[in-house]
Amino acid sequence: MESKLNQLKTRIAEIQDLRKAGALLSWDQQTYMPPGGAAARAEQLATLQKTAHTWFVSDEIGQLLEDLETEAASWDYDSDEASLVRMLTRDYRKARKLPPDLIAEIARVTTLAFEAWTRARQDSDFPLFLPHLEKIVELNIRVAEALGYQECIYDPLLDQFEPDMKTAQVAAIFAELKAELLPLVRAISERLDRVDDSVLHRPTDVDKQWQFGLEVIKDIGFDLERGRQDKSVHPFTTSFSIGDVRLTTRLDPNYFPTALFGTLHECGHGLYEQGIDPALERTSLDDGASLGVHESQSRLWENLIGRSRPFIQHYFPRLQALFPEQLGEVDSETFYRAVNRVQPSLIRVEADEVTYNLHIMLRFELENDMLEGKLRVADVPEAWNAKMQEYLGLVPPNDRLGVLQDVHWSSGLFGYFPTYTLGNLLSVQFFDQAKQEVPDLLDQIASGKFEALLAWLRNAIYRHGRKYTPGELVQRVTGQGLTARNYLNYIRTKFSEIYGL
Amino acid sequence: MESKLNQLKTRIAEIQDLRKAGALLSWDQQTYMPPGGAAARAEQLATLQKTAHTWFVSDEIGQLLEDLETEAASWDYDSDEASLVRMLTRDYRKARKLPPDLIAEIARVTTLAFEAWTRARQDSDFPLFLPHLEKIVELNIRVAEALGYQECIYDPLLDQFEPDMKTAQVAAIFAELKAELLPLVRAISERLDRVDDSVLHRPTDVDKQWQFGLEVIKDIGFDLERGRQDKSVHPFTTSFSIGDVRLTTRLDPNYFPTALFGTLHECGHGLYEQGIDPALERTSLDDGASLGVHESQSRLWENLIGRSRPFIQHYFPRLQALFPEQLGEVDSETFYRAVNRVQPSLIRVEADEVTYNLHIMLRFELENDMLEGKLRVADVPEAWNAKMQEYLGLVPPNDRLGVLQDVHWSSGLFGYFPTYTLGNLLSVQFFDQAKQEVPDLLDQIASGKFEALLAWLRNAIYRHGRKYTPGELVQRVTGQGLTARNYLNYIRTKFSEIYGL
Repeated sequence: MESKLNQLKTRIAEIQDLRKAGALLSWDQQTYMPPGGAAARAEQLATLQKTAHTWFVSDEIGQLLEDLETEAASWDYDSDEASLVRMLTRDYRKARKLPPDLIAEIARVTTLAFEAWTRARQDSDFPLFLPHLEKIVELNIRVAEALGYQECIYDPLLDQFEPDMKTAQVAAIFAELKAELLPLVRAISERLDRVDDSVLHRPTDVDKQWQFGLEVIKDIGFDLERGRQDKSVHPFTTSFSIGDVRLTTRLDPNYFPTALFGTLHECGHGLYEQGIDPALERTSLDDGASLGVHESQSRLWENLIGRSRPFIQHYFPRLQALFPEQLGEVDSETFYRAVNRVQPSLIRVEADEVTYNLHIMLRFELENDMLEGKLRVADVPEAWNAKMQEYLGLVPPNDRLGVLQDVHWSSGLFGYFPTYTLGNLLSVQFFDQAKQEVPDLLDQIASGKFEALLAWLRNAIYRHGRKYTPGELVQRVTGQGLTARNYLNYIRTKFSEIYGL
Repeated sequence: MESKLNQLKTRIAEIQDLRKAGALLSWDQQTYMPPGGAAARAEQLATLQKTAHTWFVSDEIGQLLEDLETEAASWDYDSDEASLVRMLTRDYRKARKLPPDLIAEIARVTTLAFEAWTRARQDSDFPLFLPHLEKIVELNIRVAEALGYQECIYDPLLDQFEPDMKTAQVAAIFAELKAELLPLVRAISERLDRVDDSVLHRPTDVDKQWQFGLEVIKDIGFDLERGRQDKSVHPFTTSFSIGDVRLTTRLDPNYFPTALFGTLHECGHGLYEQGIDPALERTSLDDGASLGVHESQSRLWENLIGRSRPFIQHYFPRLQALFPEQLGEVDSETFYRAVNRVQPSLIRVEADEVTYNLHIMLRFELENDMLEGKLRVADVPEAWNAKMQEYLGLVPPNDRLGVLQDVHWSSGLFGYFPTYTLGNLLSVQFFDQAKQEVPDLLDQIASGKFEALLAWLRNAIYRHGRKYTPGELVQRVTGQGLTARNYLNYIRTKFSEIYGL
């Protein structure tokens, strides 16, 4: 038995080597690759991905998992080995359900769709993207059918990113959120002038922005001996091993919160990756529990820490020293209010904490309607604009600022968007638990001390990697399942105070 | 038949994808990887290399090549396809001769040997490295036996880096070189005070060094849309495709020729890689003809161009403008003489054009003696020092500055060193041919125009990639075989003038 387990581990380790090599190729593509490298890089990535997939869905892996499954049922549920067999069996069954032809077709269709989307977005030309989006919806339906489902066609797609999460559960939580957020947004919209963020729009030196971001991530515990930060057009985090985690950020000379909060966001992802138990290296469990759990960590560090009063109080003098012309006359409280300004707007990635989730709900609803055949793809822009009007009181002047703004659909990703909101909810659930277990947590943060929080997060969440499903993990950490309650309390309290509601 | 050829090309393309992915992993390791990434990176590289090797030596490739060989004999010898079958058949037969056990043992032994060498060099402790070097000699003997040879045990090792080159030919050329270089070094050694290079040792700003290096490589034709330059401890050039060629350089604040000539050297390698016919992409012919031919291009741009009077005359005003304090009072001729100063010294990589090849001959002779059992490995330091005394009139004060200075042996590389000297000889042979075919070449260089030279090199050498053996290529380009004559003429003329001999 030991021997079968070792055979499995060896084989998976090699598959992980190919996947991580692919991750490096992607990272390089977005950071340092010259334009001339693009065509060959696509071929190299395709070969790595195809090979890793072929190896994983091999009969050999299937046989090893089958041989181990019964045995593993008697192992300690929390052991790395039991989790490995459990998670790999799950991954394997799903991967085997997808016919190679379908995978190849998705690759072909999304390559063209991405190009079309890039042009369509630039020219705000939805009809150009329409036939591609129609194909992508059709392919997602075929994926869902291949994976199988009982209740909703959306279930198996969501499950790819958030294991075991059901559409009905998301819909219920979203309804609860919407019931409270819509009135809150309306109330705040009547008092927008209560918060002025003009101070954030003063030009600042990008090298100082970069330097300050590095200072902060070092302070909060990102280990630069086991990771680094580079620049890219779209910030992201990736890792090539637990000891090599890469963040990227971008710098805007006219709006420095882009760099600061973007850096904190990616650093949250990075702290998670760096905190995984080294025993899980090359097992495929050396990853986050789900996209939602991963996002909970980026949001926790970006919003619950970075946009909190204690954090701002601690760092504001340093910011003033760095940018005396821009911030010399400003006080910490004005700055705190500015970075927490609420403003219904068109673009999801620029949205504040209150309105952000409404952007997600809109996409979740449209995706479901398209997959269930309730909404023709040609009618999506109209539906988009109607929901924008309903949720945020705004109508995009064109599709570039509306339905064409996100890359996800062009990459074939349906079922992905809800994980952003799940991450927001989980960030508060986890943080509330941390505050309970580390009573002086906020005082520590006000003094620039992050060790206790990081230690708590590592112990409760990070070290486990992907050993547990998100549902299991939330239960273990908080003693209850996913809920919108903590998040709504947080939003209500914080923004009622800021806007004097 | 067409179909077999396409099958072969597809399979080789995938193998090349893995090899190029491995090249990126190595590049990253030497440029940006944080220390924490080392262990997992070694596993990833091992998996990529093992997989590429396994795929290449498969019976499938063997069968395809066998099926194609007879047919290919009737194809145009100069066609890409004929060359592909020819070169791959040659590579395949050699690769199949090496037992997997031997390859694995070499990987194991050299990993440990490299670590031991690093420590041994640091502490100047040859006995620490001795058992590892003994094993490496033994493994090289096994490699040579496995590959097979008729005359010299050194032949098959040399052939790995310089296809078809024979030890006897190298020995004859080295004897010819030595006969003229030894008296020349002695004559110059009596007039060392004729050239003063103190101006080169003045501290300069490293950012300006970097900027100047970039200016120069752009001028000479390195395409930064299809390549880039980064920093590394040991400069090198690598490529991930013909459109993505990476140079690295290093900057020394107290000796700026390190950056300038190092950059030119790597750029020579890079121009070669960028100049390969795009039709050869992913065929395995998208590489240099040999290490010697590759080195001929780095040396051509570093020495025949970079250390030439026309080049210096063109760039010196710019250098003066960049470094007015350091060079303001200096004239171009003084600078030209300084960068061509000859000085017998202990370290190969710092050697000038006259003494450099003597360092190589010493290593070539010791390698042969070790492999033929004429020299016990334990006695190598003594033999090294005796030859240093004989060739350069110097004895290293310790093994760190002697036998332990180079990394090559610890990496298992025997038969590699001669390619450096072959590169020097070829650089002059090729450049002499270029001057014949482009009569005003030196005038163009004096005006900072490099297009004609680059176009000539691309047409004569670069575009062919690895389609021809080095012997075939030299014959095609110069109408004759490899010779030391051009090189000796060049050295004699240039340095007699500088030293007034």
